[in-house]
Amino acid sequence: MNKMLYNQTIMDRSRLIDIEDRGYQFGDGVYEVIGVYDGDFFLLDDHLRRLKRSAEAIQMMLPCPIDTLKDNLKQLVTMNQLKEGVVYLQISRGVAERWHQYPSNVSPVLVAYTKVEETMKEEAKNGAKAIITEDIRWLRCDIKTLNLLPNVMAKQKAVENNAVEAILHREGIITEASASNVFIVKDNCVMTHPANHFILNGITRMKILELCYETGIPVRECAFTIDDLRMADEVFISATKLDIVPIVFVNDHKIGTGDPGEITREIINCFAAAIQDLSER
Amino acid sequence: MNKMLYNQTIMDRSRLIDIEDRGYQFGDGVYEVIGVYDGDFFLLDDHLRRLKRSAEAIQMMLPCPIDTLKDNLKQLVTMNQLKEGVVYLQISRGVAERWHQYPSNVSPVLVAYTKVEETMKEEAKNGAKAIITEDIRWLRCDIKTLNLLPNVMAKQKAVENNAVEAILHREGIITEASASNVFIVKDNCVMTHPANHFILNGITRMKILELCYETGIPVRECAFTIDDLRMADEVFISATKLDIVPIVFVNDHKIGTGDPGEITREIINCFAAAIQDLSER
Repeated sequence: MNKMLYNQTIMDRSRLIDIEDRGYQFGDGVYEVIGVYDGDFFLLDDHLRRLKRSAEAIQMMLPCPIDTLKDNLKQLVTMNQLKEGVVYLQISRGVAERWHQYPSNVSPVLVAYTKVEETMKEEAKNGAKAIITEDIRWLRCDIKTLNLLPNVMAKQKAVENNAVEAILHREGIITEASASNVFIVKDNCVMTHPANHFILNGITRMKILELCYETGIPVRECAFTIDDLRMADEVFISATKLDIVPIVFVNDHKIGTGDPGEITREIINCFAAAIQDLSER
Repeated sequence: MNKMLYNQTIMDRSRLIDIEDRGYQFGDGVYEVIGVYDGDFFLLDDHLRRLKRSAEAIQMMLPCPIDTLKDNLKQLVTMNQLKEGVVYLQISRGVAERWHQYPSNVSPVLVAYTKVEETMKEEAKNGAKAIITEDIRWLRCDIKTLNLLPNVMAKQKAVENNAVEAILHREGIITEASASNVFIVKDNCVMTHPANHFILNGITRMKILELCYETGIPVRECAFTIDDLRMADEVFISATKLDIVPIVFVNDHKIGTGDPGEITREIINCFAAAIQDLSER
């Protein structure tokens, strides 16, 4: 597990980053966390497509073609013999004398490594608690950048309150959570915030929408309020390798019956089947 | 000039940062840029006081007492024989397995290095151009953190438009600029945005307020609009080592007569005298 990808070279892990790497000084870079199940990537192409989009949104070059990157990542997972976990991948704009504007003639710095990580089986089965806190992030949450301090602060608040997640609201509207998307179910209809600049359009979120369309579960991308969340029949969150976790308490308020709901369970089963398909291909 | 401070050790500069440094993955850290004039720090205590405040705001430990840090920084400037420039100093929360919440038992990583930098003499004399763009940053701009991508993007827009700065507005209210504070002068009164969570309270900004009080120049900390800025008699920006630069064009709109104004010049002179005092102490 000790190998990492550094630009296009797989090497032993070591301290490699310059103090004037713009990722370190400005958070000037983008990243992806890609799920690995039984040794196989799940939705790798979607992650790499989003990575490209994020890089373009901040006018950053990728260091190599996506296909090369894909090959490198597969090699990394094989060499590290990763079975269950994630690949963390980030690209910074590169090393340059510290001025805010984009430097010219800079080479992006790509690093990737593997991390063993299990899905949250216990929480997926029994549900978990979330808190609600204010969404104080910037207005381009659609770009998956390294500027994550507000997310870090929100997650910390959740942990301090014995919750798995902090659900964020901007002026009363639920956007997403600190590191996951948020869905509610009301009168058998699934709802989640539209994919605009207020949220990061999760790869798991998109897969869930697709599964709902395929299986005929009514679903709408629309804004909903804190009250809608509290009064929902079911609530769940989604993220890479967390997969889907029912939220049965929001602060100290019980959601629905206090148990994971029927539609949430159905979506969890569909999602598990999609992962299963992967290993049968 | 090749020495750097790494925690409490001054050493040759090299690549030292781990890929799981939280500064690199989350921008989870704080920083200061401290001006050096003729070999002496200017307002060092104020910078270190703000550093401590920033760290506290994100519940981060400093790696050593402020007095130790102060000694180390002075030694760094001496060893690198820096005459005119800045010391860049940042502290990240440290290296830990990547989870959003604050890790326990983590040691902060402090790095500092020197950079030769002249004040903007030409622009200070003749004035410069700025553009206006939307302030899309998070809602804790009062903390000097490494989450600087929106500032980077705004500054890039300025450079692409041949301007020295991007002045930011939030819903029509001028907050500050991408890496400086903004002041206007109207009817002989100096105005700048109050030091709340919408701006970074610049050390130079605070010095200017102090100089205005001392010399009897009327000054108010109050919000003003884009229109107020356009119709101002004078506009100037302030930042460490940039000092004070008159803004005589905002986009293609001329401010006042198009030359640096009288009050701006007076403040520039007072500021220069304060720096002069330093070397005469």
